[in-house]
Amino acid sequence: MRIRSGDAVALGPGKVDLLEAVREYGSISAAARSLDMSYRRAWLLIDELNRSLKAPATHSEQGGQSGGGCTLTEVGETIIRLYRDVEEEAQRSCAKQIAELTRLIR
Amino acid sequence: MRIRSGDAVALGPGKVDLLEAVREYGSISAAARSLDMSYRRAWLLIDELNRSLKAPATHSEQGGQSGGGCTLTEVGETIIRLYRDVEEEAQRSCAKQIAELTRLIR
Repeated sequence: MRIRSGDAVALGPGKVDLLEAVREYGSISAAARSLDMSYRRAWLLIDELNRSLKAPATHSEQGGQSGGGCTLTEVGETIIRLYRDVEEEAQRSCAKQIAELTRLIR
Repeated sequence: MRIRSGDAVALGPGKVDLLEAVREYGSISAAARSLDMSYRRAWLLIDELNRSLKAPATHSEQGGQSGGGCTLTEVGETIIRLYRDVEEEAQRSCAKQIAELTRLIR
């Protein structure tokens, strides 16, 4: 599920997975490693996300780009909760079509 | 919405957008151009999709990699229909959470 801001995708599964990894590992670099993603890509995704929000989803301590800790704000926690709610509800309400799609896959 | 095959993502919004573009433009190269994607990336996505399916979603005429025409099979059409159905249904059943998420975005 993609949440759009105008034409741009503000929020999708990649960013939400990354937020969860930041919450779990406490830094962007460790989160990136856990997702097998470059630090640069993770940093850019977080930066893009925060810029698209009214209030940021993360709070970086100390060095920022140089790799200090990173924690989630209330907004970050809310985004994860709502996004995972949407996924669960969508799986439930679309179970029939999802089963049909899955049947096409090896 | 991602449709998984084991741990891998067999189907997500990128591949479905690409299938729709192939249907509209009649070749992988024109579809890639319309999505501002490299021909190589589009070809790899289509190849990955077809390999993950029991029967392929596209049929390439003539040259394949060299850029002949590409049309959708019945399976390709079915994938687009089911996937867009899922998106519509999910938007409906998750309208409240989606509105909350959208409110966080600038």
